[in-house]
Amino acid sequence: MPLLDPDRLFPVDPSSRDLARALFQSVEDLPIISPHGHCDPRWFAENARFPNPAELFVIPDHYVFRMLVSQGVPMEALGVPRVDGGPVETDPRAIWRLFAAHQHLFRATPSAMWLAHAFSEVFGMTEPLNADTADAYYDQIDAMLDQPEFRPRALFDRFGVEVLATTEGALDDLKWHRRIRQSGWTGRVVTTYRPDAVVDPDFEGFAANVEELGALTGEDIGTWQGYLAAHRKRRAFFREHGATATDHGHPTARTADLPAAEAEALYHKVLKPGVSAEEAELFRAQMLTEMARMSVEDGMVMQIHPGARRNHHAGVFARHGRDKGFDIPGPTDYVAALSPLLDAVGMEPDLTVILFTLDETTYGRELAPLAGAYPALRLGPPWWFFDSFEGIRRFRETVTETAGFYNTAGFNDDTRAFCSIPARHDVARRSDCAYLATLVGTGRLVESEAFEVAHDLTYRLAKEAYRL
Amino acid sequence: MPLLDPDRLFPVDPSSRDLARALFQSVEDLPIISPHGHCDPRWFAENARFPNPAELFVIPDHYVFRMLVSQGVPMEALGVPRVDGGPVETDPRAIWRLFAAHQHLFRATPSAMWLAHAFSEVFGMTEPLNADTADAYYDQIDAMLDQPEFRPRALFDRFGVEVLATTEGALDDLKWHRRIRQSGWTGRVVTTYRPDAVVDPDFEGFAANVEELGALTGEDIGTWQGYLAAHRKRRAFFREHGATATDHGHPTARTADLPAAEAEALYHKVLKPGVSAEEAELFRAQMLTEMARMSVEDGMVMQIHPGARRNHHAGVFARHGRDKGFDIPGPTDYVAALSPLLDAVGMEPDLTVILFTLDETTYGRELAPLAGAYPALRLGPPWWFFDSFEGIRRFRETVTETAGFYNTAGFNDDTRAFCSIPARHDVARRSDCAYLATLVGTGRLVESEAFEVAHDLTYRLAKEAYRL
Amino acid sequence: MPLLDPDRLFPVDPSSRDLARALFQSVEDLPIISPHGHCDPRWFAENARFPNPAELFVIPDHYVFRMLVSQGVPMEALGVPRVDGGPVETDPRAIWRLFAAHQHLFRATPSAMWLAHAFSEVFGMTEPLNADTADAYYDQIDAMLDQPEFRPRALFDRFGVEVLATTEGALDDLKWHRRIRQSGWTGRVVTTYRPDAVVDPDFEGFAANVEELGALTGEDIGTWQGYLAAHRKRRAFFREHGATATDHGHPTARTADLPAAEAEALYHKVLKPGVSAEEAELFRAQMLTEMARMSVEDGMVMQIHPGARRNHHAGVFARHGRDKGFDIPGPTDYVAALSPLLDAVGMEPDLTVILFTLDETTYGRELAPLAGAYPALRLGPPWWFFDSFEGIRRFRETVTETAGFYNTAGFNDDTRAFCSIPARHDVARRSDCAYLATLVGTGRLVESEAFEVAHDLTYRLAKEAYRL
Repeated sequence: MPLLDPDRLFPVDPSSRDLARALFQSVEDLPIISPHGHCDPRWFAENARFPNPAELFVIPDHYVFRMLVSQGVPMEALGVPRVDGGPVETDPRAIWRLFAAHQHLFRATPSAMWLAHAFSEVFGMTEPLNADTADAYYDQIDAMLDQPEFRPRALFDRFGVEVLATTEGALDDLKWHRRIRQSGWTGRVVTTYRPDAVVDPDFEGFAANVEELGALTGEDIGTWQGYLAAHRKRRAFFREHGATATDHGHPTARTADLPAAEAEALYHKVLKPGVSAEEAELFRAQMLTEMARMSVEDGMVMQIHPGARRNHHAGVFARHGRDKGFDIPGPTDYVAALSPLLDAVGMEPDLTVILFTLDETTYGRELAPLAGAYPALRLGPPWWFFDSFEGIRRFRETVTETAGFYNTAGFNDDTRAFCSIPARHDVARRSDCAYLATLVGTGRLVESEAFEVAHDLTYRLAKEAYRL
Repeated sequence: MPLLDPDRLFPVDPSSRDLARALFQSVEDLPIISPHGHCDPRWFAENARFPNPAELFVIPDHYVFRMLVSQGVPMEALGVPRVDGGPVETDPRAIWRLFAAHQHLFRATPSAMWLAHAFSEVFGMTEPLNADTADAYYDQIDAMLDQPEFRPRALFDRFGVEVLATTEGALDDLKWHRRIRQSGWTGRVVTTYRPDAVVDPDFEGFAANVEELGALTGEDIGTWQGYLAAHRKRRAFFREHGATATDHGHPTARTADLPAAEAEALYHKVLKPGVSAEEAELFRAQMLTEMARMSVEDGMVMQIHPGARRNHHAGVFARHGRDKGFDIPGPTDYVAALSPLLDAVGMEPDLTVILFTLDETTYGRELAPLAGAYPALRLGPPWWFFDSFEGIRRFRETVTETAGFYNTAGFNDDTRAFCSIPARHDVARRSDCAYLATLVGTGRLVESEAFEVAHDLTYRLAKEAYRL
Repeated sequence: MPLLDPDRLFPVDPSSRDLARALFQSVEDLPIISPHGHCDPRWFAENARFPNPAELFVIPDHYVFRMLVSQGVPMEALGVPRVDGGPVETDPRAIWRLFAAHQHLFRATPSAMWLAHAFSEVFGMTEPLNADTADAYYDQIDAMLDQPEFRPRALFDRFGVEVLATTEGALDDLKWHRRIRQSGWTGRVVTTYRPDAVVDPDFEGFAANVEELGALTGEDIGTWQGYLAAHRKRRAFFREHGATATDHGHPTARTADLPAAEAEALYHKVLKPGVSAEEAELFRAQMLTEMARMSVEDGMVMQIHPGARRNHHAGVFARHGRDKGFDIPGPTDYVAALSPLLDAVGMEPDLTVILFTLDETTYGRELAPLAGAYPALRLGPPWWFFDSFEGIRRFRETVTETAGFYNTAGFNDDTRAFCSIPARHDVARRSDCAYLATLVGTGRLVESEAFEVAHDLTYRLAKEAYRL
């Protein structure tokens, strides 16, 4: 039995299934537009071999290792590094075996389908991974990683990626992006401006980061205007390295539009020790509006990814650091939160702000009504926990009736797991085609329109929304 | 190809579809009960021709024009009037062409289906509206509007409306309703008492409005008891013009039941300048309970429509005023909010309070448990953004298991777009029949019961809940 | 026509239906594990006949009588006792007739299916209950209740219950449990430690309850350490009577982990009159963490059932007391609320905390991400209003993609209506099999895995999660 059902994710009734399949076939081979994600540009600069199966599939993927942790497997046994450099498992084969023995935990999760896709489509596997097949898998993948056609650039081409955006902090020197350009390789890998470390007073080392921002730009960060000018320079620097967008990962979507003098006073306050939680939140809020204003000036698309309560377990954070699967969403307000920003620039026809959420209750109640009114707003695809068949279904069913298709921004894979990129786009394309086929089958959309929309959702909307 | 699929909105599997169709055929031709909406009574008093296609379908319909605005079309280009009387597009054909050229924005939205229904069933169109067919559409509709059978009263009859409720402010003189009655026309058009302008201290001109309320009724609004007496008189005046219901559109569902002396003191406070947000909210809250008590006395059904954050963009509100598509829902509490009112009168067997929501998360968590316990409560149908196939499906699936069918109140079209009335009832009837067919198909309802429930949801529940 | 469709709750398309049926047949006859509920242990100790149909099906079941109350039937007419001992209907046949005449209110509710299951499978009825069949039903059921095979123990065996957990307050003497053990009957009925009355300062008679706790255990409840020691002793006493779990029904999920001195000071404060709402909440919060620590010590599984706003109508509570259908859910936070407890013991591999919710918005946003990371957490099945086909569907569709199947804890019937136990497990098994069949049909799960998961969800997960 193959690892993948060729009709997976299509509706079960025969006529809807036939149409879904036809729609999917019309978009299956379109290039991948990946306008937001967390791949490492170094992969494409150096084009070195991926070290081993565990480092490719387990150690960096918090979707994967946190599921084993949730059932009592220690992070150390999965090779997840410790902040203090203390001992963790270093034998990739041992890690792989542990991972293989726990495959049942992933049943009916997106990870299961993404992994099956990568195993089957990238590495040619035909048997499911489990304790019995663990070693055969390991050996075969490890051997393949040695071959030139499994190097990052070859896979990039094989995956059909037209453009891939990575995400770098405001202080990054972008040297890997520079090296990619200088290498003569024609793959298009662009950066994205993510200034959290220099706009969030709660970020580790915020004041020092701002100092460094000043040093890098030659602007006087001792003044509010100098600080803003430094951002403008870094944004320009990122644009020189292909960036068309910025990205903002705040705890909330709160924005503010303070009078200039108040903003300036707040800036001086947050640079000093003893910042209150409210002051930090207000400064982040003000900076979202400042960033939106800069986007009006320089044309960069603004992404807002709010709502994760990061590092929920203090002990795990202290021992293993950020991005270890312990980021938990919470209720997120957009209506009051975005009001200052939208009052300032929401009606600007040339501004694009793409909103994401980890709170699905806001799809129909807040996000679709906002995006269905403000010209500056577009809705990003289902994010993180909701980048899944059911997540995409709920997104489309809840958003489309109010905001239509054309206030959405296509698909993001948003991944640091390189081999999952084609799998994630495959799931999104199938899920969208399933939805479209259902619309046609229930008389809500004409078949010819469905083919056009399928193409738009797969290719055109992402490319246009991100100005790629 | 016809504009409408005759089996639209029915389940796709053949046996469920057959049953849904049979259920729908049993209710398709029942009269329309329209117990809540915003049609202009003047249409039926004067029975003049509708001016042109743009004024019929585009300019007054915020569902329609805000979608074009969301994609960068200025409101002015769509003929939406400015508060300052400044220039806007006045050529209805130019507005129509702009509307026609953007039809793709409505794909898979309820507006698309309502428009197709009106174009097809009211005006006999057979080709889809788009840039190419814009002029032919305009000419044909415009010519038809000239014919007597397209006048308001003729359409009212043709639509099969048994009774239509409009909504008027407490200070309205109801002259159009009087003229309808005096005209000898037998169509039943009734008013609804909507006192927001005289119970909400945040309403523009609140104190002056209360003065006018006193003048109209001859009651001494200088006292709390006189103010309440004035409401009683206006309610009676509205009842004389057919009203069986009141309607309350507050930002929240908060209610209060203050001791009389505190309520009186609050009343005097809110009439003076400098009312705080909390005082205004508390006064609205108190007035909901006062209105519920008057409903116990006079038998008027009370509707509560809370939760819209009105006029979200300050600039749009300043330029174009209310109801321009920039009203955005937010989280809405019912459990704590309604507690004072329900403690006071919630167990009254002769009181009916119909609750609406723009926060779908409250369906299963708050509204169904409340309506499934309190005799005074009924749930209104899905409102505004959720008056749609998916909205109705979510409502039924989430509410029915806890509150059953008989604590719901049938369908409201709640529209100011006259030609969409039959379309909206058509969608609601089909959506309900689809749900019922699925219940039967999965053994959750007996087929004979489904036919009875279909009739109840279409006709009897609205008529009984609104005492029409 | 039979009262029950043999294919009820299965998907309608033929191939999914066939698979759902096959899956269900593989688990249909598995023993019932009932790890949480509210049956009266006295039934099994005394094994007396159930008094009459009204006392079996109507008077104790708030799902049932609140639906009639919501349509204006007074509680008194349904025989619901008054706190003041005032007159209520005492003729069980009159109550039964009222119940029978209102059966249409239950259409498409879980109660309708549970009642039909009990009528059909337990009492052999073949005609639907209604006003016409009321007396025949009454007579037949009443006669059957007289027969030995309708005594509690006989039904327990006939239902195939392997183990049934009841819930008793911390001060209960557990005499009925002792009598069951001493009787020689082999049915396994265990208790559960529910300490709300001695950990919640808002509970009626809290201070006196704590006094009694001291008296029962011989511990010095005048000190914080003595109070905690008293809990430890009671937990041990409950374990001697079979308990493997504790249960906590707080208004919120808030937890706290105060320094010992603060906890001690708070304890002394809440024992005195004049406790503030915040102090009461903080004490409950602290006690959840204390209970979790004791669970680490003694291995008892901890259940948290938060989020009901109890006794919503003051008049109903004053007249009829607790558990009368007027408990209404509200928004419930888990992310911030559980943080102190999880920081303290969330990574303990041997601790099991089972979380429940009445706020479905938390499934995907909070509960699945938490359970998909913390080894100590498992998710309980859909609770109360959501113990239904649609409720189970939403739970599985929203939770599984993030938390998988193996961070859930099987099914609870959580009922005080004995005859509904097999009905509720039947609905849960069918609903889960329907979901699994859909996963297989859409290529998200392999068929052989579906059979394994069906068994796990029905039997193994509950047994293991509750250590039964």
